[in-house]
Amino acid sequence: MSEEKEHSQIIYIGKKNTISYVLVAVTILNKSDECSIQARGRQISKAVDVAEITRRKFLADKVEVSKVEIGSEELQGNEENPITKTVSTVEIVLTKKE
Amino acid sequence: MSEEKEHSQIIYIGKKNTISYVLVAVTILNKSDECSIQARGRQISKAVDVAEITRRKFLADKVEVSKVEIGSEELQGNEENPITKTVSTVEIVLTKKE
Repeated sequence: MSEEKEHSQIIYIGKKNTISYVLVAVTILNKSDECSIQARGRQISKAVDVAEITRRKFLADKVEVSKVEIGSEELQGNEENPITKTVSTVEIVLTKKE
Repeated sequence: MSEEKEHSQIIYIGKKNTISYVLVAVTILNKSDECSIQARGRQISKAVDVAEITRRKFLADKVEVSKVEIGSEELQGNEENPITKTVSTVEIVLTKKE
């Protein structure tokens, strides 16, 4: 099924070290063709670092950035703080070169 | 000259408030068709915020993100700290819709 390609594995960038996510990306890309790195707010800079370090140092000349997309997402407030906040998001897709 | 289009005005994201850069972007886009937002390192998240706030709040439905590119840049060390560092970079281009 060609649809299977859409289920690329996703890495959500959080508070861990950059290198932890790089290792996850490298592991995914050793098994499959594609890996999607997603982040919001302040973690966006880290997502770009993860993509760049993976592409340049660990899998040099083997993967390329096939998509970079930015957007916004609304975060619903909770009872304590009911204000809805808008945060920026990023998705970076790394794909193996043919 | 069609080449003039390439000289789109560039905003380099630094340490000022997000909203200061949004206002610069809005001012540029009121006069010309295109504006390039560039940042490196930790300022990358702010660059995405600037692009998203400009696109969604200030010039809603009038501009779109026509390009997002990530890369790396080498920063030469100085005498005190001679180590060359690599930083991630981003360029986001906002273009007026036709």
